[in-house]
Amino acid sequence: MHLLVINPNTTDEMTRGIERQATRYARPDTVIDAVSPSWGPPSIESHFEEELAAVATLQTIAERGDRYDGIVIACFGDPGLYAAREISPVPVVGIAEAAMLLACTVAHSFSIVSTLHRVKPSLEDLVRRYGLEHRCASVRTTPLAVLDIDRDPDAANTTLIAEGRRAIKDDGAEAILLGCAGMGILDDRRIQDHLGVPVIDGVVAAVKLLEGLADYPVGTSRAAAFKRPEAKHIKGNADDLVATVSAPVSATATASMGL
Amino acid sequence: MHLLVINPNTTDEMTRGIERQATRYARPDTVIDAVSPSWGPPSIESHFEEELAAVATLQTIAERGDRYDGIVIACFGDPGLYAAREISPVPVVGIAEAAMLLACTVAHSFSIVSTLHRVKPSLEDLVRRYGLEHRCASVRTTPLAVLDIDRDPDAANTTLIAEGRRAIKDDGAEAILLGCAGMGILDDRRIQDHLGVPVIDGVVAAVKLLEGLADYPVGTSRAAAFKRPEAKHIKGNADDLVATVSAPVSATATASMGL
Amino acid sequence: MHLLVINPNTTDEMTRGIERQATRYARPDTVIDAVSPSWGPPSIESHFEEELAAVATLQTIAERGDRYDGIVIACFGDPGLYAAREISPVPVVGIAEAAMLLACTVAHSFSIVSTLHRVKPSLEDLVRRYGLEHRCASVRTTPLAVLDIDRDPDAANTTLIAEGRRAIKDDGAEAILLGCAGMGILDDRRIQDHLGVPVIDGVVAAVKLLEGLADYPVGTSRAAAFKRPEAKHIKGNADDLVATVSAPVSATATASMGL
Amino acid sequence: MHLLVINPNTTDEMTRGIERQATRYARPDTVIDAVSPSWGPPSIESHFEEELAAVATLQTIAERGDRYDGIVIACFGDPGLYAAREISPVPVVGIAEAAMLLACTVAHSFSIVSTLHRVKPSLEDLVRRYGLEHRCASVRTTPLAVLDIDRDPDAANTTLIAEGRRAIKDDGAEAILLGCAGMGILDDRRIQDHLGVPVIDGVVAAVKLLEGLADYPVGTSRAAAFKRPEAKHIKGNADDLVATVSAPVSATATASMGL
Amino acid sequence: MHLLVINPNTTDEMTRGIERQATRYARPDTVIDAVSPSWGPPSIESHFEEELAAVATLQTIAERGDRYDGIVIACFGDPGLYAAREISPVPVVGIAEAAMLLACTVAHSFSIVSTLHRVKPSLEDLVRRYGLEHRCASVRTTPLAVLDIDRDPDAANTTLIAEGRRAIKDDGAEAILLGCAGMGILDDRRIQDHLGVPVIDGVVAAVKLLEGLADYPVGTSRAAAFKRPEAKHIKGNADDLVATVSAPVSATATASMGL
Amino acid sequence: MHLLVINPNTTDEMTRGIERQATRYARPDTVIDAVSPSWGPPSIESHFEEELAAVATLQTIAERGDRYDGIVIACFGDPGLYAAREISPVPVVGIAEAAMLLACTVAHSFSIVSTLHRVKPSLEDLVRRYGLEHRCASVRTTPLAVLDIDRDPDAANTTLIAEGRRAIKDDGAEAILLGCAGMGILDDRRIQDHLGVPVIDGVVAAVKLLEGLADYPVGTSRAAAFKRPEAKHIKGNADDLVATVSAPVSATATASMGL
Repeated sequence: MHLLVINPNTTDEMTRGIERQATRYARPDTVIDAVSPSWGPPSIESHFEEELAAVATLQTIAERGDRYDGIVIACFGDPGLYAAREISPVPVVGIAEAAMLLACTVAHSFSIVSTLHRVKPSLEDLVRRYGLEHRCASVRTTPLAVLDIDRDPDAANTTLIAEGRRAIKDDGAEAILLGCAGMGILDDRRIQDHLGVPVIDGVVAAVKLLEGLADYPVGTSRAAAFKRPEAKHIKGNADDLVATVSAPVSATATASMGL
Repeated sequence: MHLLVINPNTTDEMTRGIERQATRYARPDTVIDAVSPSWGPPSIESHFEEELAAVATLQTIAERGDRYDGIVIACFGDPGLYAAREISPVPVVGIAEAAMLLACTVAHSFSIVSTLHRVKPSLEDLVRRYGLEHRCASVRTTPLAVLDIDRDPDAANTTLIAEGRRAIKDDGAEAILLGCAGMGILDDRRIQDHLGVPVIDGVVAAVKLLEGLADYPVGTSRAAAFKRPEAKHIKGNADDLVATVSAPVSATATASMGL
Repeated sequence: MHLLVINPNTTDEMTRGIERQATRYARPDTVIDAVSPSWGPPSIESHFEEELAAVATLQTIAERGDRYDGIVIACFGDPGLYAAREISPVPVVGIAEAAMLLACTVAHSFSIVSTLHRVKPSLEDLVRRYGLEHRCASVRTTPLAVLDIDRDPDAANTTLIAEGRRAIKDDGAEAILLGCAGMGILDDRRIQDHLGVPVIDGVVAAVKLLEGLADYPVGTSRAAAFKRPEAKHIKGNADDLVATVSAPVSATATASMGL
Repeated sequence: MHLLVINPNTTDEMTRGIERQATRYARPDTVIDAVSPSWGPPSIESHFEEELAAVATLQTIAERGDRYDGIVIACFGDPGLYAAREISPVPVVGIAEAAMLLACTVAHSFSIVSTLHRVKPSLEDLVRRYGLEHRCASVRTTPLAVLDIDRDPDAANTTLIAEGRRAIKDDGAEAILLGCAGMGILDDRRIQDHLGVPVIDGVVAAVKLLEGLADYPVGTSRAAAFKRPEAKHIKGNADDLVATVSAPVSATATASMGL
Repeated sequence: MHLLVINPNTTDEMTRGIERQATRYARPDTVIDAVSPSWGPPSIESHFEEELAAVATLQTIAERGDRYDGIVIACFGDPGLYAAREISPVPVVGIAEAAMLLACTVAHSFSIVSTLHRVKPSLEDLVRRYGLEHRCASVRTTPLAVLDIDRDPDAANTTLIAEGRRAIKDDGAEAILLGCAGMGILDDRRIQDHLGVPVIDGVVAAVKLLEGLADYPVGTSRAAAFKRPEAKHIKGNADDLVATVSAPVSATATASMGL
Repeated sequence: MHLLVINPNTTDEMTRGIERQATRYARPDTVIDAVSPSWGPPSIESHFEEELAAVATLQTIAERGDRYDGIVIACFGDPGLYAAREISPVPVVGIAEAAMLLACTVAHSFSIVSTLHRVKPSLEDLVRRYGLEHRCASVRTTPLAVLDIDRDPDAANTTLIAEGRRAIKDDGAEAILLGCAGMGILDDRRIQDHLGVPVIDGVVAAVKLLEGLADYPVGTSRAAAFKRPEAKHIKGNADDLVATVSAPVSATATASMGL
């Protein structure tokens, strides 16, 4: 079996970490290719970055998605997932979705422990999008930016374990989902040992679900939500996209602003 | 990998059909043992039969559940699932739960097409128990009793396809779940060809999920809901259980009754 | 009127306490018979014990349920309730259900104060099963095992009052439900005096609801969910049930286990 | 026991019918007084009429509510219920609330069959206010105005039975609630015989619940929602209220108007 | 444009404050008339007072509502709103509703910071009535009675800012709604500066929504919920209404009472 | 006031129609500029097209969004709305969101009547994203592709009126939302006359809400969900984006495919 794992951001170290994690738990006959898009943000912590990364991910699927038996979108916001299902001939699974679904088989409820506070509303929206709000004890965030994890894995480990404990004790979580693809470089089994409840990395969960789908096989429904797009002429080009969206964001991000 | 598939009813032909179905889609290195409890109802179409079958299933797990890497409860009501998780050292997956979770990876919403009208409220409760009501387009029932399926598979096929079409057209279902373990003897890929949307047999879904859990591996959370039972002295014996519960049910079932 | 109150566990002292409590608040013309099944766990604090107790309760109803005008299932998990409705010719009410419904007539929201932490997810599921999650401020648990209540009623009283106060102050509870049938031996009016909000024992609530149903009279709907079971041959016998399920549970409960 | 049953509208025949219905099913030791407010609309089929009737009902309670052990608000919109709880020293139950709660003890789901189409949104709001939307299969309306029922009971019977059948067949209702206090003059047991599922008149349900509450006894929670109002000086008087609100309504009701 | 802003309580200072607030943010061509009913409670902090105020508000609309392009009900419980829609030829907006809807355009979630603890359940019911519970982070109350705000605006400011901060920090609120019309005398822009998130006064929100509705124009739907009432003879008169409801409330409020 | 109305697709005739519609209902002092992105799909009927259009819309905002007092995203899927809020210094409103919120002020429930069947799940997700599922009677679709509306407005009118009638009659809709920005070229007041309930075009609703927000003024919350993105180096460029994503979609759309 051949799976394409797309890290929607453009940080190569993270892509490699995700590949190692996916390969570690894949079946012996599963080959994992992990890639990043050729353009886009180095990490995804806002809706804005998620939108860019979603399109870059779709471009990656358009370029090479037809050579695989399944595709993983390896960012815990599942950017572009529904569009990816539309254009891909094979099943596509997001790691947030996968982590949540697999958790449901071993735990009465789960909490997500993720990165910066600003992603909390997005992740709560995502849980609700999948209709799993009654299984989710809480979404918890930390002071960790995505790229902090690779910079100081030990500190990240400590932070995640502390926040996971709060989720278990205060929110009644019975499993902990690692709320960022980049957490794949951490030793999730060691975190599990510390927390004493199942700890699930969505990258692994997505690989296992895709292996199962391919064995059956069952493919993406084309009834309505994921029907293939019509053939349409897409006008113009996006040549200055990156330049344009880079400038004002830097500006707004550094300027002092009122409401 | 060694999986125990328990058919909670006592109809052997059905157990054999479930075993064939589980084996057909299992990985080459997965060995499937399908068994029925030594006592209990021949089919499960009421809460009463489900309660008996749940306990008989638990007895089966107590007798032999420790020799496997995972356990499937192969009745679409998932009888005894949460109790089974408590007493089993390995993951336990119900086929209703498994079918719903796997469907979520390929379809925006699913419908369950099941047996007699009387199971509709139970299945709706089950969907809600798992918190998946926002993914479930409808629960549809048919005039098929569980044991009718084996008696006349062609008629069952026709009935299921017709009801599945209604679910797709009238309820917006984007996948169809076969709402009875006994439907494993039907050719689910042929039903899928007729309906044009993913058709999922929970027996297969459960096997694929357990294979994934065992690879990771991730086990049942012991935080609260599925904590192991305390050691307690269970008083008395259930020697006359079957005789006692058989009699009055036959009586009430045949007598003419008001409200 | 003649009501059968079944304590689904096999601890006689508790059955007697429940009988006293039911009798105290019953109308003068209501006769209460409280019984326990002939076999089963001494207390119910896990899904496993609940499944056993449910079947033992159904056996009790099969043996003697036809001599009464109504039946109470006096364990706060309402074990076997829906199945009991199917096989009983008369209304069956669970004490959890009864406490919640009666609370809705005097309070905007209620909290349940129950026994060990492990029952929290089950009780939350139960609230949701009855569709009353928007009336339930919280489910709170305590360090009290079921049988601790009878052993040291004063300590139990103190614990319940303290936890009830937290529910009122922190969760906005406007009534407190006693989340265990065994709390019937405590003086619920005294707890109410301490807490200053309605305190409801489900045993009493169930008796009052059954008296009302019998006066009307209105019986169990047979439309679908609680339709009588079909007459079927139940195969085999459960002679070694208790022996079989006792052993491995003791084993798993005492052994040291990983996830 | 002494119960005050308030028919919030001012149609005396209907008040008498409600009194007969309440008395028929009350315990022998329960005395029923049914009254109407001294002013207000002859029937309640709009939010506007409901608001007037709510205040007239509160006035009635202020005048004589302290002489009873419990109060029934006998209009299926439960007008003024929460305010009535605040000012009444004894429990107050609305018939919509009572019918829904009692139905939950005998049926998996209920439908309400009521009067004119315009009350459907209000009744759906009411079901949701009580948090019972997951138990309610549907709210169905008919061409019957409130006062049509008394004018032609036979036609009303026929209409209700036909609509009840649709609720059972199309919506999966397992019990039918009579969605208007005025339906008390019909023979609800005969409707039940025709429909074959429990048929519940909220007037009866409210009486039975109040009898139960008084026996316990348990009173209205004063924690927050139903805390007694502060003593405040109510300014002015409502002398021209009825004259003022009568005129424009007649005008708007007869004039031809766009959106 | 001519808007009628009704303060449903009878405290003139508050009506004037509301008028100033509405006028401050109205378009230059919008004329605001703020009035109070001629009778009713000086402040609204209970369901009882809300019912009285609702009818007094309806009387005010009946008297003069036909001379305006839109009507604001300026009490954060939106008393009588649905009835007002029925009898008014022009759109009617409540300030709670308006604040919530406008907040949804600038914030992912909002909290309401209101007056006394006793209004919390009512406000939670109101949020749910409008179907906005998934946008509401919390309803928070304070020790402030409605009339305290005008008495000591500085203290009120301090209290609101402190409670708003808790809503933002502990509940994840991304906007704060001022949960009482009387808060219009405070400087809501200053509170916003302190809190750093949008702060919305429903009086302003209602004016802006009505201006928009009038420009379009779009009027109240008459399909069902807000259909005009039928012309009916309203019997009797409410001459002694205020006297009657005043007495027992004072009595019950001062007497010592058990449950 | 200066508002930027972005039509996220690249069909100029539609942009002009939207501009006319926005201008028609804007205040005299509001200047409307309607634009399309320089690249992207001619119409948006799939998640894939929505993702492309979202990014093209964000690019448009980055290029010129800082010169306005508010921004409308004029496609009924609200593509890129949350990201747009993050990068825009002024409020951004989507037309779907605006239509739903404004409808809530005049109708108890609304239905959306939109284009092709395939958008139904997306629109249902959108309603749920905004937490308004309890106000939405139904999402109804038609055989109309987006660009059919401009091609044959009369036929489109007829289709919308017919489907709107079904929503009112069968689903209980009390207002109809025009589920596509392109419907702005139709005469929405004429459709309203035919249907007899409020008919709301989201383009108009968005303009009116932005005018209100600017008057107050209240801006986008920066607490978490819509916090400004960090300044990050966006790697690479999207030069071949349009070429790449065009090819495979055309291929998959024309090829014959199984599941």
